[in-house]
Amino acid sequence: MTDKSAEPLRVGIAGLGTVGGGTLKILHNYAPILAERAGRPIEIAAISSRDRGKDRGLDISRMAWVDNPLKMVEDKDIQVIVETIGGADGIARELVEKALLAGKHVVTANKALIAHHGVHLATIAEKTGSVLAFEAAVAGGIPIIKALRDGLAANRFRHIAGILNGTCNFILTLMWEQKRSFDDVLKEAQDMGYAEAEPSFDIDGTDAAHKLAILTSLAYGIAPAIDKMHVEGIRRITLRDMEFAYELGYTIRLLGITALTEHGIEQRVHPCMVPLLSPMGSVRGVYNAVMVEGDSVGTVFFEGRGAGEGPTASSVVADIMDIARGVTYKPFTLPVKALKSLPFAAMESLSCSYYLRLSVIDRPGVLAEVTSIFKKEQISLKSFIQHSHKPGEAVQLVLTTHATHESSMMKAIHAIAKLESVNEQPYMIRIETL
Amino acid sequence: MTDKSAEPLRVGIAGLGTVGGGTLKILHNYAPILAERAGRPIEIAAISSRDRGKDRGLDISRMAWVDNPLKMVEDKDIQVIVETIGGADGIARELVEKALLAGKHVVTANKALIAHHGVHLATIAEKTGSVLAFEAAVAGGIPIIKALRDGLAANRFRHIAGILNGTCNFILTLMWEQKRSFDDVLKEAQDMGYAEAEPSFDIDGTDAAHKLAILTSLAYGIAPAIDKMHVEGIRRITLRDMEFAYELGYTIRLLGITALTEHGIEQRVHPCMVPLLSPMGSVRGVYNAVMVEGDSVGTVFFEGRGAGEGPTASSVVADIMDIARGVTYKPFTLPVKALKSLPFAAMESLSCSYYLRLSVIDRPGVLAEVTSIFKKEQISLKSFIQHSHKPGEAVQLVLTTHATHESSMMKAIHAIAKLESVNEQPYMIRIETL
Repeated sequence: MTDKSAEPLRVGIAGLGTVGGGTLKILHNYAPILAERAGRPIEIAAISSRDRGKDRGLDISRMAWVDNPLKMVEDKDIQVIVETIGGADGIARELVEKALLAGKHVVTANKALIAHHGVHLATIAEKTGSVLAFEAAVAGGIPIIKALRDGLAANRFRHIAGILNGTCNFILTLMWEQKRSFDDVLKEAQDMGYAEAEPSFDIDGTDAAHKLAILTSLAYGIAPAIDKMHVEGIRRITLRDMEFAYELGYTIRLLGITALTEHGIEQRVHPCMVPLLSPMGSVRGVYNAVMVEGDSVGTVFFEGRGAGEGPTASSVVADIMDIARGVTYKPFTLPVKALKSLPFAAMESLSCSYYLRLSVIDRPGVLAEVTSIFKKEQISLKSFIQHSHKPGEAVQLVLTTHATHESSMMKAIHAIAKLESVNEQPYMIRIETL
Repeated sequence: MTDKSAEPLRVGIAGLGTVGGGTLKILHNYAPILAERAGRPIEIAAISSRDRGKDRGLDISRMAWVDNPLKMVEDKDIQVIVETIGGADGIARELVEKALLAGKHVVTANKALIAHHGVHLATIAEKTGSVLAFEAAVAGGIPIIKALRDGLAANRFRHIAGILNGTCNFILTLMWEQKRSFDDVLKEAQDMGYAEAEPSFDIDGTDAAHKLAILTSLAYGIAPAIDKMHVEGIRRITLRDMEFAYELGYTIRLLGITALTEHGIEQRVHPCMVPLLSPMGSVRGVYNAVMVEGDSVGTVFFEGRGAGEGPTASSVVADIMDIARGVTYKPFTLPVKALKSLPFAAMESLSCSYYLRLSVIDRPGVLAEVTSIFKKEQISLKSFIQHSHKPGEAVQLVLTTHATHESSMMKAIHAIAKLESVNEQPYMIRIETL
């Protein structure tokens, strides 16, 4: 039993945006219950942010303020620094590095930082005996990192799939439920603060990729490998695709998937058609979800809010509680030197079913041309939809395949794109039967 | 950072039924990956069961066998005893008590033992510095105990609802999906080994009640209070109820619910109508699920296999891994002396919507009689269904109410049961809009 000293744990919070502000509120408002559960008080020793005057729904005038968060590193009274500034580099990275070097524990929600520099930072943490914890970096309030590390530690993980970006899931949900275009819903998401003015980090899959790299790392005991990943965003999805999906019994979600296959570790982020009534298909709005398949436990499904003040701060404070209780792990569970170097499966070796939407000139023979290309690549057609259309309009032709190789499908798409009767780059969505 | 000694952790397993046998297999088959993740080997130091000769899909002839599991307590080489014998008393209790007194750590899947004697055992564990861990006691492979203790530790819990008994969920799922009677499906569940020959422990809600008492204890920092709980099983649910539920947009599940209300802690296990397409309504077969509402994290939903060799053993081994890693907690997180004594809400103070099925003699005026009783109790009727029927048959009359008080509803049911035209005890199911 850890001897829980009644000495307070003193925490500095660097960055008081959504997550940092939420963390501050929980630590301040719930101090008695946290102290009881942790066996010792958790104190706010210093706070720092760009704008001291901003209303944070909390009186911070009596809290110790520092303009430069790096000052916290020098403060001997601070044992934990919460980094909620964000960004893979710049001040966030400098702060975390210096804090760990100074032997301070670091709790962060920064997925970009961990995905890119996690191993470097973990190496420092191991040397100085510091904790580097990042539950909040993946899937907001869902305690998925602790689950992979602790609760499911007895399992070999076959497959993990997640809805890891709330912004994308919000856009896809609204497009379908309100029958609106991508651009239209994106604008609303921006107005509501769910998407940035420059939204590419979310909608092109980068954010989900960072989170998936962290999950893969914990599942398979490897360093996060953001460069060994196939990443596609959601920009090309149309309402028409969603209507076709519905007709086929699916809905569209942006998934991050990692799996251990005979070809190596598969790591991919892309839109997927998932069965309409499946757990993943039922995840709406800004919610996140993770489905873990372990060889002892079977399938375990986690769903919760993926972003926002409360949920993400809930995970930050959970990490602080671990430190207060003396429950500490190496950042990637295994020591850095024990992290493995496993092969990654090439995207071409993937095998799945595909949805393909073609915009074609309506003339006899186009289907024959397409099917002859499928035949050449040995792709077996599963279904075919062509809706009636007005004369002169391009026809939307939808095909789905039985399980086939990604490499064959890519060759087929390449050949189809060159057909004279196809007047737009074909759009393909992979079908996942989760 | 915990100094992880490379000394092996030596484990004795008492009881090699489904869970014990599964634990043995994971420890044996996955030894290298567990050692890597824990930072030290986990060894099987002794095993014990009633029948040494039984085929367990594993060669146990070279493992140290003891006929009497109590012998493990005297073995100085054993640090952890896994109790998978079962039962609130008898040998299981004696073994756990003696093991803790001897300073050994105990990992158990025994919900009856923890629900009834958890505080007594935790008191011993605290005195001797032993761990008493029971992740496997609730919801099989879902790491819900660790989630409440660690991952969601920053939250005050408003409401927790769970499908906690796989046998009941299996029966309810099959009844509806195969349009079969309760008795018929129960028999199949017994034949398949999902239900005991004497099934009352499962179908009358006792097992779910044990698990709920443990969840309530961890959520609110109180001692498990199995006697402060309203418990109803699923024996009276008919296929007809499920058909009516479907017509109303619901399905029926046995839920365990705990909540902090103005009247105190609510603790109840009973059949509920839940929305057909809700997460709870979608949990099928032997799966378990837990929905946690925390004031920071919002709603988090966990689903996974609730029973069986692999899932439950996955949780047992997760607890062993914690011990191997030096990650230890007091059994109920708080020290026994810090457990609170909070008031429990009387069932009568519950307020919800109700489904009421009446078997009535078909004659004019019966509905008027029922509605006049509702009026007297100030219960607002929401919907009413009466299907056409054959002459001479009893009529099934279904009523649903708007939110009303349990006490009013009970008075109304009491009065309705006395009506001459009502020829069977009315059957009521609470409606939960999870």
